[in-house]
Amino acid sequence: MTQQTGPGEFEIIRRFFAPLAADMPGAFELTDDAAAVTVPPGHTLVVTSDALVAGVHFLANDTAADVAAKALRVNLSDLASMGADPLAYTLALALTRETNVAWLEAFAASLAEDQRQFGIRLVGGDTVATPGPLTLSICAFGCVRQGTELRRSAARPGDAIFVTGTIGDAALGLIALQKGLAAATAADCDVLVGRYHRPTPRVACGRRLVGLAHAAIDVSDGLLADLGHICETSGVAAVVERERMPLSGAARAVLAAGAGDWPTILTGGDDYELLFTAPPDAEMALAEISAMLDLPITRIGRVVERHPADNPERLVGVVDGQGRMMTMAGSGYRHF
Amino acid sequence: MTQQTGPGEFEIIRRFFAPLAADMPGAFELTDDAAAVTVPPGHTLVVTSDALVAGVHFLANDTAADVAAKALRVNLSDLASMGADPLAYTLALALTRETNVAWLEAFAASLAEDQRQFGIRLVGGDTVATPGPLTLSICAFGCVRQGTELRRSAARPGDAIFVTGTIGDAALGLIALQKGLAAATAADCDVLVGRYHRPTPRVACGRRLVGLAHAAIDVSDGLLADLGHICETSGVAAVVERERMPLSGAARAVLAAGAGDWPTILTGGDDYELLFTAPPDAEMALAEISAMLDLPITRIGRVVERHPADNPERLVGVVDGQGRMMTMAGSGYRHF
Repeated sequence: MTQQTGPGEFEIIRRFFAPLAADMPGAFELTDDAAAVTVPPGHTLVVTSDALVAGVHFLANDTAADVAAKALRVNLSDLASMGADPLAYTLALALTRETNVAWLEAFAASLAEDQRQFGIRLVGGDTVATPGPLTLSICAFGCVRQGTELRRSAARPGDAIFVTGTIGDAALGLIALQKGLAAATAADCDVLVGRYHRPTPRVACGRRLVGLAHAAIDVSDGLLADLGHICETSGVAAVVERERMPLSGAARAVLAAGAGDWPTILTGGDDYELLFTAPPDAEMALAEISAMLDLPITRIGRVVERHPADNPERLVGVVDGQGRMMTMAGSGYRHF
Repeated sequence: MTQQTGPGEFEIIRRFFAPLAADMPGAFELTDDAAAVTVPPGHTLVVTSDALVAGVHFLANDTAADVAAKALRVNLSDLASMGADPLAYTLALALTRETNVAWLEAFAASLAEDQRQFGIRLVGGDTVATPGPLTLSICAFGCVRQGTELRRSAARPGDAIFVTGTIGDAALGLIALQKGLAAATAADCDVLVGRYHRPTPRVACGRRLVGLAHAAIDVSDGLLADLGHICETSGVAAVVERERMPLSGAARAVLAAGAGDWPTILTGGDDYELLFTAPPDAEMALAEISAMLDLPITRIGRVVERHPADNPERLVGVVDGQGRMMTMAGSGYRHF
């Protein structure tokens, strides 16, 4: 119903997307109505879906390569938080009239690079035209041995709370992009912006947490909000110690210069680190995983009993360096 | 990042979508990062994804119930064309500021109705805000015994070509909606518009074609274009007999009144009937399936050898009642 302005749907699929499905027999070179995905015996398929809209979930002038990486990686992060091995994904892409061949080339090349890095393959999807902002949604599949997937709801009082990598970088990176961060060096800004544009899904770590962690989630809405999700579904509460929070050198420098604050660090989203609970005696095993993957894993707090009087919106307490409870204005990104 | 104007994402999920996942243990009530889908032993998972944009794939003033039905049914139709049994689906929904609670209620109620009718359950998804038109993409999963899925590429010279139901109704229904069809009675218009708004995925038929049909596809781009897809991937050509084309009473009346034409019937899309090839001796078995399901299955042509001189864009010939080859202006819906 719309005017032909560039390569048509079939040409786009053949030229840019079919090569991404070339190694996947069940993708049928993207020429069939659907794909066939084989799940190894004794395994469960883990399924996740995330949608991104230009101007809402990424900036309208972000590069095609960054958009592709972010779209795939946020889904990979969900697979990681379930302890699943990436298997395949579908891509539904609503392109604007302005989308040209160069954009599609860079977009597909970025997906190809991440496919290699994370061991996942395109198996299907849909390419349509939209008069609105570029919109894409990925549905990603992973597999995990039956009954061993990591759940948000499995935290128990007495568990220690851990987080991978560093926290708050993406939120500071977004501030740098939107308003600038004059207090930070150009190099620090690059690091923070890079963390916002290209989160690193902790796939290798998530897989190794199976059988070790109790509850797990990835930090997308913000550390406190996501820990709140664990507490809600597990029927527990949590206390985190601000001084234990793992910060990057760049985030430390920004905080020291007074250009960022703790609420930004603790409630900002988009870090895509793994946040999980485990029995305190798991700490040695976690230290080994940390060393093997060269990825910091930091204990930041503990799971406690929930009391009937607890405000269900305030299940996560934060104590500062002096042991005082902090109050926070907000508890995370609201989507609407 | 956007202003709160109605129920937030979590409230929308809890109120409207979690009930659609209630019977599905692996959906975890939509409270986790991902869902767990169990594929029966010896089966392959069939995966398909379709995206719909308001104003492009459905009309901006279509009801919420029709939008929901169309979005789910076009995906169910893809599962049917592979011979797969529906299992589960994810829904990525980009809502506009204008989307209100009444719209969401009607949308979810329509999905609930189709879930019951077609035996599929919501397992996950994502709900986001968009400044553009309402956009939704569904990724649907089905299962089929390993190695038995119906493919587009399995047509052989000598096969007969069959189609379920009637052809051209949806294209005429779209004309009725967009320009009106003065030549048709109000009752006929309702039938045609209904076929455009609410296609019937031929799930029960598709499942029974496994082991019987060679190649299969669903009619979404238009009968000739979709038969062309079968020919392309199978390395064959095809001839269809116009006089054998199954038409509804409403379509016949419109044609008789001169308000519709054969190109509209043969190249219009959106019928979501099954188009398949099978050995000629399958006709008795197909007649039984047709009687059991109370669904017409009509032989409309035959698969022939492809000659090296054939134009790869013209692999499907149409002969009229006098046996003359017809020429067609276009061969189907172009997506861009």
